[in-house]
Amino acid sequence: MIREALLMLVALGSLGAVADEGMWSLDSLPAKQLQSLYGFVPDAAWLRHARLASLQFDGNCSASFVSPSGLIMTNHHCVDKCLRTLSAVQKVNYNAKPFVARSQATEVVCPDTEVEQLLSTDDVTEKVRAATKGVAPEKFHDALVAVGNQLEKACVGTEEATIRCDLVDLYHGGQYQVFRYKRFNDIRMVFAPESSIGSFGGDPDNFNFPRFNLDVSFLRAYENGKPAVTPEFFSWRNEGAKGGEVIFVTGHPGGTDRLLTVAELEYQRDHELPRRLQGAAYRRGLLHQLARQSPHLKEIVEDPTHTLENGIKVMRGEHNALLEPRLFERKRQEEQVLRKAIAKDPALAKEVGDPWAEIAAALVKQRPLAERSSLLRITSPVFKVAQYLVRGAAQRTKPEAERLPEYADRSLPDWQRKMAAPTPLFLEIEGPALASGLYLMRDGLGTDDPTVRSILGSKSPDTVAREAVKGTKLADPKVRLALWNGGQAAIEASRDPMILLAKAFESEVLALRKRFETEVEGPRSRASERVAKAYFAVHQRDTYPDATFTLRLSFGKVVGWQRADGVSIEPQTKVGALWERATGEEPYALPPSWLSAKKKLDGATPFNFVTDNDIVGGNSGSPMIDAQRRVVGLAFDGNIESIGGSYWFDETVNRCVGVHPAVVTEALRVVYGSKWLVDELLSTATPLAPN
Amino acid sequence: MIREALLMLVALGSLGAVADEGMWSLDSLPAKQLQSLYGFVPDAAWLRHARLASLQFDGNCSASFVSPSGLIMTNHHCVDKCLRTLSAVQKVNYNAKPFVARSQATEVVCPDTEVEQLLSTDDVTEKVRAATKGVAPEKFHDALVAVGNQLEKACVGTEEATIRCDLVDLYHGGQYQVFRYKRFNDIRMVFAPESSIGSFGGDPDNFNFPRFNLDVSFLRAYENGKPAVTPEFFSWRNEGAKGGEVIFVTGHPGGTDRLLTVAELEYQRDHELPRRLQGAAYRRGLLHQLARQSPHLKEIVEDPTHTLENGIKVMRGEHNALLEPRLFERKRQEEQVLRKAIAKDPALAKEVGDPWAEIAAALVKQRPLAERSSLLRITSPVFKVAQYLVRGAAQRTKPEAERLPEYADRSLPDWQRKMAAPTPLFLEIEGPALASGLYLMRDGLGTDDPTVRSILGSKSPDTVAREAVKGTKLADPKVRLALWNGGQAAIEASRDPMILLAKAFESEVLALRKRFETEVEGPRSRASERVAKAYFAVHQRDTYPDATFTLRLSFGKVVGWQRADGVSIEPQTKVGALWERATGEEPYALPPSWLSAKKKLDGATPFNFVTDNDIVGGNSGSPMIDAQRRVVGLAFDGNIESIGGSYWFDETVNRCVGVHPAVVTEALRVVYGSKWLVDELLSTATPLAPN
Repeated sequence: MIREALLMLVALGSLGAVADEGMWSLDSLPAKQLQSLYGFVPDAAWLRHARLASLQFDGNCSASFVSPSGLIMTNHHCVDKCLRTLSAVQKVNYNAKPFVARSQATEVVCPDTEVEQLLSTDDVTEKVRAATKGVAPEKFHDALVAVGNQLEKACVGTEEATIRCDLVDLYHGGQYQVFRYKRFNDIRMVFAPESSIGSFGGDPDNFNFPRFNLDVSFLRAYENGKPAVTPEFFSWRNEGAKGGEVIFVTGHPGGTDRLLTVAELEYQRDHELPRRLQGAAYRRGLLHQLARQSPHLKEIVEDPTHTLENGIKVMRGEHNALLEPRLFERKRQEEQVLRKAIAKDPALAKEVGDPWAEIAAALVKQRPLAERSSLLRITSPVFKVAQYLVRGAAQRTKPEAERLPEYADRSLPDWQRKMAAPTPLFLEIEGPALASGLYLMRDGLGTDDPTVRSILGSKSPDTVAREAVKGTKLADPKVRLALWNGGQAAIEASRDPMILLAKAFESEVLALRKRFETEVEGPRSRASERVAKAYFAVHQRDTYPDATFTLRLSFGKVVGWQRADGVSIEPQTKVGALWERATGEEPYALPPSWLSAKKKLDGATPFNFVTDNDIVGGNSGSPMIDAQRRVVGLAFDGNIESIGGSYWFDETVNRCVGVHPAVVTEALRVVYGSKWLVDELLSTATPLAPN
Repeated sequence: MIREALLMLVALGSLGAVADEGMWSLDSLPAKQLQSLYGFVPDAAWLRHARLASLQFDGNCSASFVSPSGLIMTNHHCVDKCLRTLSAVQKVNYNAKPFVARSQATEVVCPDTEVEQLLSTDDVTEKVRAATKGVAPEKFHDALVAVGNQLEKACVGTEEATIRCDLVDLYHGGQYQVFRYKRFNDIRMVFAPESSIGSFGGDPDNFNFPRFNLDVSFLRAYENGKPAVTPEFFSWRNEGAKGGEVIFVTGHPGGTDRLLTVAELEYQRDHELPRRLQGAAYRRGLLHQLARQSPHLKEIVEDPTHTLENGIKVMRGEHNALLEPRLFERKRQEEQVLRKAIAKDPALAKEVGDPWAEIAAALVKQRPLAERSSLLRITSPVFKVAQYLVRGAAQRTKPEAERLPEYADRSLPDWQRKMAAPTPLFLEIEGPALASGLYLMRDGLGTDDPTVRSILGSKSPDTVAREAVKGTKLADPKVRLALWNGGQAAIEASRDPMILLAKAFESEVLALRKRFETEVEGPRSRASERVAKAYFAVHQRDTYPDATFTLRLSFGKVVGWQRADGVSIEPQTKVGALWERATGEEPYALPPSWLSAKKKLDGATPFNFVTDNDIVGGNSGSPMIDAQRRVVGLAFDGNIESIGGSYWFDETVNRCVGVHPAVVTEALRVVYGSKWLVDELLSTATPLAPN
């Protein structure tokens, strides 16, 4: 039987990571694989340095220190929020114009922006197991939250201003670790290009290659009003990597589903993705039409449209991947191999039980709850602010242990900061955005649903939205902060229509969340732990955990690929070819700065390139480094084939797309006249010893 | 083995129709079933009368004669096109105002509207078999088209002005019949209510119940300038049917997929429906935002929005039905029963081969072709006119036998009439509509696709759309007609940008159609014929064919149902309850005519009601008649559960929704002051003998 299982594994070539596959935790790199592929294995000092030079950027991107003076590199598309805020505050449109600090002294604070550096990780699996042992499925989620809160609180201590700690679930309950981060909250903008070159090609070229995106920005971390001292940083290798050379991507991949059960994947394919794709398509049509109404609206909807369209491409790619029959064949066979191996071991079989059946049962309950919750999830930004205010006030009337985990004491200053931040809310588009949410709610739940009746009364979604947007004062940060600080009394006294609307949703939204945690998440987590346990018992820990927005290392090399239609794609583009693609019509219209610099730019400068590093959303802004820890690129995208990477890695076609270091310095010098910044980057370009 | 199969059948309770299931051809009613359920079986005279009093309405609805003077009853939502045209011609908004002819003399022609009466059917199965015998799969579609054209042509003879003939494929190739229709082309509007009562409750209440829709309109067929003489009509029974009494629905259900193979249903679930739902959601978001821009645009987008939203509800319901695990369990078991029975009969097995595998193989080819075709299918009405003109001109340069079948000689006068009709095209919304099509095309095929490049050049979808709409003259019927009449020379000389745009699509669109017919439709049809043959061999013809937009009879009774949430729904609503649901906000705002008639209307008047007749889209406008062939209702909708009727019939929940005769006459008298029309209806209300 084991022999049969092994034969199947060989035939499938699947279990355990192969070749350049994997988003590895820094504490469990596949040394043998690295040695045989590249003859190089990072040692402890290398890893420590890479860890401290790598950053999590504002909760959803990656970044890195690229000078000893706190200079941070990330993607242009990761600084959307900061540019939007600076545009509003300075009355300059930083989508249309570049942000170029002329010296370090003129760098400008990005409000409400946080960058985090991983200080340490601590394996707490046994502590978590002890706290959840024997807990019933319906109490399991609460028990996990309680022990998580306790561990995080102990880890942060009294340093909540500078330390953040997260309990991280790896291998779907196979391992638990506490990640301890240093927080940088004074982040200032140094350089960001115009969005027409920062995301040249827009949505059509997103996830495509050949590509010409200067998707880079620079910021700087400050401490006590001065540039942070950051001895661990990645130095600059302007010429990039050579072919065949190992390239590491160090960053924070957000999420993969490679270890899910077949039932969980089917749920995504049949229910989750089709539903979300429809909602997103509806909002996209609406935003496109809004953009046609006036230049002002066009400007305002640009950011949300980018975000939405990126999400649509990802979901569509995932759905297509799940519709590949061979994906499910492989996943089914893998599951069979594991289940047969368990059946051979009575003690293990007894311990593990049938978690697959438990997960499948939880998914049956998940469907109606997820559908209803999604219909009651209104994505209008101003509504969400109102919702946070209403919820935050109510939560703070309770003892900490009874609150939702995101309202623990240590998080309250962050909420306050967020409410006080001058992040703009564009009421011009909030009416349609809110109406569309209310519309889809009534559409899905029906006119006669009691919650719909209580929210809309006898009014139409458009009327309710219009009145709420017209009357709200929440676009003013002072009003938001006052309501936050005023707590429950202020919320109860408020007649702001957006607050009243958020209140109308609150009890059912919270009840659904509770039911979801009790009936779905708890039972699923509890069952998943036992799948992981079985996996480790049968296969040992021969693979990497699914991505969890925590620091990972992937490895690979510069290499093109062959598309399904047979076309071979070269791995690198050059500045010279940009001019052909620039038709002058959006999204292929270059900014004036590039058009006027055309003659001065060296056409032979490498622009974008692809590698077979295994990355996923969240890796945006990740440095691509060589064995000597020098920057040889900046990851900003994957190819369209890489989206299937949510479920499996196919080295033959899965590609990471990066900005080449040479185009960054060329553009800074020639287009943006930022010699001082180039000097700062290049002054550090002394190679370190390779270990 | 047969015993096993029979036991399975009993357990499944599925093969062969049961109870009130079925959309039966008039020539193969289930007499035993009718006798046992209702003690009544229509005889030949009854059926002849019902056939001649039933009408197909303008290609996509059903209707009936309800007086001997050509008076036609159908739904309000079936006369959209006529009302839109009359609104444009008369400069009156017939969405907001009722159309009420004050006498027969003031009835107004509905341009480009055709009503058809089924004269006869002719079984041509053997002729079709002979023509396609031994034909290779890739030639099969062409062979079918050729024999169809030949049979239809012979059936029409020289009477193309008054006769239409269709080759109809029943049981997916199990039987072929030629349907011969009398055409009525002079159709005049008699009465249509405001859309706010004609589709009261709008999209939210569509497919729901309780309901309050006066979804009725009256028209009249004319011949030689006088009301047509129509001795076969359904008389009026104002009090409606009693509980338990048999009710027949006679009409033209458009399409069901109850006899498809499992692979075909999976294809719909996984590929077809998710793709179409996403495209529709995008267009819906766009239309909703267009409606917010101005009252004028709101008015214009009302019709396309209704059509789109109805389609979305249907597709969503179908997708949900296909996501029911028990549906596929049953379909798989049915298929197994059939395949096992075939395997038991070597001669049959040899004759049938493995059509299931052939269908599955065709579906693999279908997916990329269907996706690409759908991305090149632009739904903008003005673009479609241009496409018809370009195609029609090119087709007419060929001998008839080489043309696409819709451009046969006998159809050319219809095309000409269509081009000359004053059907309005609203250029105000064509820009966004066209842009959205071009946008989705680029979105799906990519900027670098050769067809996309040849269509867009270096321009954006919005620019191309804007220029084409700005420059086109096709909104003028005279221009359309001149281009049609001018043929290929006129099209070649035309510089109309919409014509040029349509030309840019033409070669690939036609090539894709050809590939689809050759690689997908032909092989599928050829294989489906053998599935049908096997089915008939094993089960005899114990069931009704899938719906095909041809005349069918279903039977049932007035009966409520229990919803999935346990709520029991009463089968009938009354006028009195309308006032509670009328909030004054769209789509629950009543028109002024109803508000001012409130006191005079009898609250006890039945309004809408449900029966368990088996109906589907295309049945809209069907008369609901009793055993004495009297009108006891007008079908206009199904409940939400009925949408799963595309795949199977569940008598416990599947309901047809009708307008009660009493509310029609009450509204005509009290709200619209149309006593003469009520008199015409009631003067015929003499019951016929029950057979």
